[in-house]
Amino acid sequence: MLDRVLGPLNARRLHRVFRKAKLTVLCLFLTLIVLRANIGAGKFGTPEKDLDEIRETFSHIRNRAEPRRVLEEVAELKSSGDADAGSKNYADFDIKKILKDEDDGFPEFKRDPSQPYSLGPKISDWNEQRSEWLKNNPDYPNFVAENKPRVLLVTGSSPKPCENPVGDHYLLKSIKNKIDYSRLHGIEIFYNMALLDAEMAGFWAKLPLIRQLLLSHPEVEFLWWMDSDAMFTDMAYEVPWERYKDHNFVMHGWNEMIYDEKNWIGLNTGSFLLRNCQWSLDILDTWAPMGPKGKIREDAGKILTRELKGRPVFEADDQSAMVYILATEKEKWGEKVYLENHYYLHGYWGILVDKYEQMIESYHPGFGDHRWPLVTHFVGCKPCGKFGDYPVERCLKQMDRAFNFGDNQILQMYGFTHKSLASRKVVRIRNETSKPLEVRDELGLLHPSFKAVKTGSS
Amino acid sequence: MLDRVLGPLNARRLHRVFRKAKLTVLCLFLTLIVLRANIGAGKFGTPEKDLDEIRETFSHIRNRAEPRRVLEEVAELKSSGDADAGSKNYADFDIKKILKDEDDGFPEFKRDPSQPYSLGPKISDWNEQRSEWLKNNPDYPNFVAENKPRVLLVTGSSPKPCENPVGDHYLLKSIKNKIDYSRLHGIEIFYNMALLDAEMAGFWAKLPLIRQLLLSHPEVEFLWWMDSDAMFTDMAYEVPWERYKDHNFVMHGWNEMIYDEKNWIGLNTGSFLLRNCQWSLDILDTWAPMGPKGKIREDAGKILTRELKGRPVFEADDQSAMVYILATEKEKWGEKVYLENHYYLHGYWGILVDKYEQMIESYHPGFGDHRWPLVTHFVGCKPCGKFGDYPVERCLKQMDRAFNFGDNQILQMYGFTHKSLASRKVVRIRNETSKPLEVRDELGLLHPSFKAVKTGSS
Repeated sequence: MLDRVLGPLNARRLHRVFRKAKLTVLCLFLTLIVLRANIGAGKFGTPEKDLDEIRETFSHIRNRAEPRRVLEEVAELKSSGDADAGSKNYADFDIKKILKDEDDGFPEFKRDPSQPYSLGPKISDWNEQRSEWLKNNPDYPNFVAENKPRVLLVTGSSPKPCENPVGDHYLLKSIKNKIDYSRLHGIEIFYNMALLDAEMAGFWAKLPLIRQLLLSHPEVEFLWWMDSDAMFTDMAYEVPWERYKDHNFVMHGWNEMIYDEKNWIGLNTGSFLLRNCQWSLDILDTWAPMGPKGKIREDAGKILTRELKGRPVFEADDQSAMVYILATEKEKWGEKVYLENHYYLHGYWGILVDKYEQMIESYHPGFGDHRWPLVTHFVGCKPCGKFGDYPVERCLKQMDRAFNFGDNQILQMYGFTHKSLASRKVVRIRNETSKPLEVRDELGLLHPSFKAVKTGSS
Repeated sequence: MLDRVLGPLNARRLHRVFRKAKLTVLCLFLTLIVLRANIGAGKFGTPEKDLDEIRETFSHIRNRAEPRRVLEEVAELKSSGDADAGSKNYADFDIKKILKDEDDGFPEFKRDPSQPYSLGPKISDWNEQRSEWLKNNPDYPNFVAENKPRVLLVTGSSPKPCENPVGDHYLLKSIKNKIDYSRLHGIEIFYNMALLDAEMAGFWAKLPLIRQLLLSHPEVEFLWWMDSDAMFTDMAYEVPWERYKDHNFVMHGWNEMIYDEKNWIGLNTGSFLLRNCQWSLDILDTWAPMGPKGKIREDAGKILTRELKGRPVFEADDQSAMVYILATEKEKWGEKVYLENHYYLHGYWGILVDKYEQMIESYHPGFGDHRWPLVTHFVGCKPCGKFGDYPVERCLKQMDRAFNFGDNQILQMYGFTHKSLASRKVVRIRNETSKPLEVRDELGLLHPSFKAVKTGSS
């Protein structure tokens, strides 16, 4: 028909155009289908889910937000100008984009790499400075009771949200766990979220932090560093402080594995005790030089891999560095280092978590060792990162079990327990009473002796 | 050429086939490009990033996981059977599915609704029980220093990961903030993650918890409830305990707004002090009946909306219920209730957060009031849920600012501060020294007088 209107030549041209256009249109159509399928399955959910969310959002606004906000502002005198701008639905946002720090990406440090790294000005008379201070500040004694030193538990995590959303949830459970243990044992906590020295990022960040805390808190006798992926699983176990009266540095480990084998996992720096004294400042200064990010840390890593048994290839880490220091300078440091293995100051999770039910069956809290580990440490799980060294499902489920295993010891104080080690739900294990003070909790943790502190005033 | 081989008709057919095939191939090609672009841009990053991740994963496995795991197992004697099963990449998982509790969805409580709700067996002689206990347990005094009661700060959050991934990160920052304040002020913390009574879920969950803690800890003089969305912004402010020596319940609020107006936001139950005594058990018993989930809470909500000024329509909440109780039973409870508004025991964030810079300019920590609020409370932001009452971006950014505003007061103790209120990065504000004990932090928070506790032993 076209060729009658346009002429045969033009009609053929037009047909050719249509044919090419058909090709383009078909490709475009196909592309659109593919695009829609991808976008739909990813960010915005199914159409049905969108409608539900819209319904919910609308009803929520209609019923709650406006009246309360207006009233609060009237009551409090000032309204905030831009309070109305923007979505109230968290799912609408790329949270990472909102929380992007103005400094992300900026070069972080400008130290001259030819200058040796230093944690701070050299101090040689710390013991003297500290004892002078303690003498002048009797309200801040370094021993809070007989044979009980003042202890500061130090832990921390990145100031950024975890790469993996569930990571922060586990950090939260982990700090709750530490809060519980520390409250029972009269220990204070410092939770760090600041990178004090950008050169010492990652596992090395603890060194500048530890030094700063020791120097700022002369009243602290022992600083207890604990990784964020380590949890207390024996709430009743009190560290045998007296055992360490002649030592300054306590780590879980084995003498033979360090001094004979130079084995890179002969000790663990995920949970250790460090006395506040000159010796400790000195070992921190000895420890730090392998830490600075970049060439120094890379090269140090090669040395450590070469020198230590079984160490894979990767940049220098604080644990390997400490193995190296102790193995090569035993005469200098060894006498004051206690490698503890009679209880789990650090307990590798892999060989502990499957045994919790057996432990419950055969033992009770208070042993701190293989029978009832003080600490279960989830080395390698890295729930805050994108991927770890172990299967995700095993890590998350076992971390929940370890948390509940410890939490049960807290809950029993109040007459509750988790329904199972896998369950968040709690159930009663004791009837309520109108004479609560006549009931003692089974583990005696409500008012334990290791917490009682004699005060001079009332 | 083809038509010489195949004959003109077949050649033409073949040409037609080729032409159609060309169309199909072109579309497929286009589709592949589009698919690749979409997959690349979403889950797995750019191709370059994919390669990097693959390299990293491969080297990670080659270098770290296997040798370390094998060694740890050899060193620790047992290997876990299913350690090799499953992905190590957190992004591969629907985490919610992994963490789905066996009990999710099960009916949670089976109480007879015709029976009145009760927090527990009636106790009428708590003051006597408690003073007897205190007399017999001098190691657990209810006053830890002169005019300083033993205080337990109680807060908490759901045992489930937040609906919105960034929610847990803010819960984490919030508890760190509370840990800091509490450490400075000699206060202990209880972080709750257990639902003790399924009927009293949501904002009512605090009631069974508070009662249980009071009864289990007679040594606690004041229980300080604080919401998870409230943060300390004045680290130097000590609550004026003496002011409340004749009161049992301290909330931020205004007498007129409660007793004259019955205004539903005349007080705030997001941060309050409750003395451990019979009176408090009684008011908890009076408070609880509007709480049980379902018809009771719904109907109670209607009463509260009808009776209170400005209250929108929604189920009964603990705050409205308390307004109602005080307004309708003033003669019974009023004498022992202190509605405090001379400092921000609770400070509505909306009117505070834009003023932080002015505060820094004109004032200093220690006021606790409009000049430097003790508490900034992010009512309505709900970062743990899917959506809140306010724009997401404003909430998150302001929560970061409030956190940093408080954190700066902690960091200055150690010579650091945040680069700005919006930044996670910290910078030095004091030169390092070899005489750290001669330097006092500006705010005097390292060894504040309100923390010094006289001990009888050394």
